[in-house]
Amino acid sequence: MRYPNGRKKTRYNNQLKQRKTNFGKRGMTLESEINETNLYYLETNRAVVHKKPTPVQIVQVDYPKRSAAVIREAYFKQASTTDYNGLYKGKYIDFEAKETRNRTSLPLANIHQHQVDHMKSVIEHDGICFLIIRFNHQGESYLLPAEHFLDFWNHQYDGGRKSVPLESIQSKGYKIPFSLQAKVDYLKVLDQVYL
Amino acid sequence: MRYPNGRKKTRYNNQLKQRKTNFGKRGMTLESEINETNLYYLETNRAVVHKKPTPVQIVQVDYPKRSAAVIREAYFKQASTTDYNGLYKGKYIDFEAKETRNRTSLPLANIHQHQVDHMKSVIEHDGICFLIIRFNHQGESYLLPAEHFLDFWNHQYDGGRKSVPLESIQSKGYKIPFSLQAKVDYLKVLDQVYL
Repeated sequence: MRYPNGRKKTRYNNQLKQRKTNFGKRGMTLESEINETNLYYLETNRAVVHKKPTPVQIVQVDYPKRSAAVIREAYFKQASTTDYNGLYKGKYIDFEAKETRNRTSLPLANIHQHQVDHMKSVIEHDGICFLIIRFNHQGESYLLPAEHFLDFWNHQYDGGRKSVPLESIQSKGYKIPFSLQAKVDYLKVLDQVYL
Repeated sequence: MRYPNGRKKTRYNNQLKQRKTNFGKRGMTLESEINETNLYYLETNRAVVHKKPTPVQIVQVDYPKRSAAVIREAYFKQASTTDYNGLYKGKYIDFEAKETRNRTSLPLANIHQHQVDHMKSVIEHDGICFLIIRFNHQGESYLLPAEHFLDFWNHQYDGGRKSVPLESIQSKGYKIPFSLQAKVDYLKVLDQVYL
């Protein structure tokens, strides 16, 4: 990670904390643990998985003399895919990570239609697609295959509930083990379930 | 594409033209043709391939009342992967797109070490990895398998040339056909070469 002009990342992070924004950054802890895990997988040559950058619509850029271009006006855009994808044992893998403070279910409002459409496409083209869901209160993370998630998503439109209950995630999904180096060791689950 | 607050995209594009920046936007024409092609592939359900968003380091964000958050200070970051990846016939595909005004070769200075490292990882993990190279003068695009590109890349460090000659791209690579709907119809080449 490079911080141009020697500025620190914390200024942005502090602002996020103060304002409690919801621009895809609520998942900071889970996100940073997954990023660390992916880096560990990459360095140990186990898998090639990256988070996609946050999509931003750039409107104005300044070009100061003798220093880096500065974006002066830009807006957050909605992602058209899930946040993570990559390659494991020759297979395309694709997932979305969500955490919730809710103790008993994951609200479907956390996921956007675009992301759901993307999951459907990935399944249709024989990719491996899933969600990583963290329940903050319990401190537990689950891998839920996208196929099961889509059942809940579709069911909400014919009178079903607007959330995925923890019990369903536990019965249809898989608890992700924690290790010091791979804090969200989802490849262990993939080995069991898909490969 | 959404333009928050009704602002038009052209302000940014015009600036780019005026300043001749090199923040990964030189490939605007090729990039937009590939994006169109990918959209066509997605809509006709042939493949799921997306361009990754430009990575940006966000430093300061304003939160005006009753309107969208505005990024007020941010910097372009170097990408740690190639620009495009996705899924075709159950296979992971990954590529970088480069265009050049040079008539006889693609300068290696156009590609960053990070991207080369990423290509190596993709090959090692059995993904399909390649470059799409457009020669603007001839108006022709080629698909060059990353394996061949890496030969040139490595050779530059033991006295080899600092560019990939067009003749080598023609002999080791494949001309990409053009069609009205798929302007850079690279899946045709993938079908022949890899699948």
